[in-house]
Amino acid sequence: MLSLASFTSRRILCIRHYCKKTPTKLRVSEAISGSNLGANIKIQGWVRSVRPQKKNLFLHVNDGSSLQSLQIIATFCCSQIRLLTFGCAVEVTGLLKQSPNQKQPVELEADKIRVVGECNPLDFPFKIKERHAVEYIRQFPHLRCRTNAFSSLLRIRSEATAAIHSYFKKNGFVQIHTPIITSNDCEGAGELFAVQPQRPENDVDEKFFSVPAFLTVSGQLHLEVMSGAFSKVYTFGPTFRAENSQSRRHLAEFYMVEAELSFTQSIEDLTEVMEDIFKSSTEYVLAQCAEDVALFHKHVSPGHRVSSKGMTYSEAVDILNRSSQNFVFPTEWGCDLQKEHEKYLVKHCGNIPVFVTDYPYDLKPFYARDNQDHPEHTAAAVDLLVPGVGELCGGSLREERLDLLRTRLEEVGLEDAYSWYLDLRRFGSIPHGGFGLGFERYLQCILGVDNIKDVIPFPRFSHSCLL
Amino acid sequence: MLSLASFTSRRILCIRHYCKKTPTKLRVSEAISGSNLGANIKIQGWVRSVRPQKKNLFLHVNDGSSLQSLQIIATFCCSQIRLLTFGCAVEVTGLLKQSPNQKQPVELEADKIRVVGECNPLDFPFKIKERHAVEYIRQFPHLRCRTNAFSSLLRIRSEATAAIHSYFKKNGFVQIHTPIITSNDCEGAGELFAVQPQRPENDVDEKFFSVPAFLTVSGQLHLEVMSGAFSKVYTFGPTFRAENSQSRRHLAEFYMVEAELSFTQSIEDLTEVMEDIFKSSTEYVLAQCAEDVALFHKHVSPGHRVSSKGMTYSEAVDILNRSSQNFVFPTEWGCDLQKEHEKYLVKHCGNIPVFVTDYPYDLKPFYARDNQDHPEHTAAAVDLLVPGVGELCGGSLREERLDLLRTRLEEVGLEDAYSWYLDLRRFGSIPHGGFGLGFERYLQCILGVDNIKDVIPFPRFSHSCLL
Repeated sequence: MLSLASFTSRRILCIRHYCKKTPTKLRVSEAISGSNLGANIKIQGWVRSVRPQKKNLFLHVNDGSSLQSLQIIATFCCSQIRLLTFGCAVEVTGLLKQSPNQKQPVELEADKIRVVGECNPLDFPFKIKERHAVEYIRQFPHLRCRTNAFSSLLRIRSEATAAIHSYFKKNGFVQIHTPIITSNDCEGAGELFAVQPQRPENDVDEKFFSVPAFLTVSGQLHLEVMSGAFSKVYTFGPTFRAENSQSRRHLAEFYMVEAELSFTQSIEDLTEVMEDIFKSSTEYVLAQCAEDVALFHKHVSPGHRVSSKGMTYSEAVDILNRSSQNFVFPTEWGCDLQKEHEKYLVKHCGNIPVFVTDYPYDLKPFYARDNQDHPEHTAAAVDLLVPGVGELCGGSLREERLDLLRTRLEEVGLEDAYSWYLDLRRFGSIPHGGFGLGFERYLQCILGVDNIKDVIPFPRFSHSCLL
Repeated sequence: MLSLASFTSRRILCIRHYCKKTPTKLRVSEAISGSNLGANIKIQGWVRSVRPQKKNLFLHVNDGSSLQSLQIIATFCCSQIRLLTFGCAVEVTGLLKQSPNQKQPVELEADKIRVVGECNPLDFPFKIKERHAVEYIRQFPHLRCRTNAFSSLLRIRSEATAAIHSYFKKNGFVQIHTPIITSNDCEGAGELFAVQPQRPENDVDEKFFSVPAFLTVSGQLHLEVMSGAFSKVYTFGPTFRAENSQSRRHLAEFYMVEAELSFTQSIEDLTEVMEDIFKSSTEYVLAQCAEDVALFHKHVSPGHRVSSKGMTYSEAVDILNRSSQNFVFPTEWGCDLQKEHEKYLVKHCGNIPVFVTDYPYDLKPFYARDNQDHPEHTAAAVDLLVPGVGELCGGSLREERLDLLRTRLEEVGLEDAYSWYLDLRRFGSIPHGGFGLGFERYLQCILGVDNIKDVIPFPRFSHSCLL
């Protein structure tokens, strides 16, 4: 054990003094890369472990630049070792050396260790050697980024976001910031959040926007506006549903990737892009965050297999009806596919992603393109079902024929509300289609994370809006 | 004039038939680049002009891939020319040739012109040869992307977004999706939008989130959470203010770029990053969208000069007090700088960006770091003022010292509400700081656009939420 007595009372634990040029400030990931061996460096981060040995003190310091921490070795005695605790912030300078230990390639032989911010381990809710349940960690949204798993998740989420933007940019899509506050209700129904200024109660009747305003449930219709001037557009941002559910599958605020393609004539044009995004993003994330992803795959079963299968809704109904499984929900033609059905279909196909196309016309919203097939009557819509998650993407060709669209809007009494939408068909209408991909579900799928609340920095759901 | 009589009545205007391999589908920008000269190609887009001449018909077709349209030349007679109008959607195949005309490098000698979607020019609100006022165009948010200026703006906005993400990625920042719905109010005041499910009125008292929930005004505090685990983080997303203003400077929904840097000790660490982002993004946009940017600079005076000057708040007050200008608002030490002051300071410095630092402590929110200077008493805060726009960025070092922060929160009675925020200082606190940049103001600044409503796809403001 180290002698506690020989420490000074100052927070600067400065022991071996010798002249050196100013140390190079490195991130932990840069230090670990090994390209700075022999350099005098400075790193800053948080202590992940403290191991005093007979002669030496070992620390592991992490700064969020990688899952790995840098091993620090202090070959000197020090008092006030009590400040060097799990969770404290430190600044360390010293010599970056090859490590004699196989477990890490390099280590930092410290000259100087400065505790920048203390951390009382008795008060800190995460304990150094305990493996906390995700449910426990979730109670501390302001601290959970300090756990290995969640900091890995956040790096992966950041890289996956970059991967998706990069895919679209490379393929000539224009990014559109579709609005968050909207006076449209894309699905024609659904559980909306209303928006109004926080004001004294007597003022509540006066509308800020003059019209009722809601949080968006989809940027699709706004993207369709843009698909009247650009051949390819996309949006990637937050969407909202006021669903009264605390299930592991629902969030009130979640991220959607939505794309709209002009001059698109077939569902295959859409499924090709969906598959491309899935594959290219997943390859990118695996390449950029191999170590972080491995942490998840150590504990969970990943589902990032990228081969896929396709079937029509009618074929799917046949498969369900031929199955020996007893479903809770009906499997007749015309009924929507439920979670249990989706799960069965994915399993039936060997646990790979499955495209289901051509859904009953009556199940789909007004904008879905009429296949004009009889007697079935389907719409050119497609869902992508994936293992563990169920529906990952949903898309359709959009009804570009003015007369058909107008008739359908009239049937549901929406022709006035969507007069602007009909304008898009009045003036230079084009065949087009698009889809949405649930970004959190995508992360769940490739990482095998069970609860959607664990793949978003600050989950919002029924009865919970922490911070 | 072309003979209208010789046209067929079908919408496929197919004249010269000869065998060719399937034409290559190109975007207009690809066709114009000239690398496919001599190829049999297909392009799809919208007609921007129709010019029938004695023997030939000239069309210009745009697909949003560039400001330039592709010139189409049809050397055949055609009936139903009436379908070929400004705004209609067409598909054209033919031979891509060098153009004899200096004005464009290439032209497409059409074999086949198919009108995909008609456009009645009498109904279409934008006229082919008219120059419409921006106020007029703004009334048609679903069609304004079809004007040259606004489609250029949207391409620039998309590239500027990519530039900003690229800057942060290159510099090791982790992107965080900070929440839109929040139970915090970052500024401690301000005009908030409240969020609640759209429900029957008698149900209004039951809170969906159990706590009052609002649309975010800033992701700063959530980024500060992350700066306890990562050395560099950023967010780029929508923020909201329920400001009752229809001025050219205000939106209810606008985009902010916010960054937070750990282990940062001086305002200069922040101003350096602000300046870097400004410079690198602007260079990127100028390189990627030279033509689009030139369109704006033809009509307006741009303000993208990237040299900058710095002064303290106290120096700024001195300059204002020495000036011969009569200001409406007071210029005493301790008063906030108003728009008129900002304008004067920028002009005083020769119309270049100006950093103003070290504002009076009492003017700044609780999180700003106390400079502990006497007798002035300032906080380590900084604003970046730019020509035409005024405040583009605002930032500060954050108070990382637990005792000082706690005292200040106690003074304003917020120590309970921000107990989680104090936790960040209790456990491994670090010196850190950050800033926010108004993305629309940035676009206004580099393009010289006067009204903020003209740099966002769907502007939301007091009494307006179209679509």
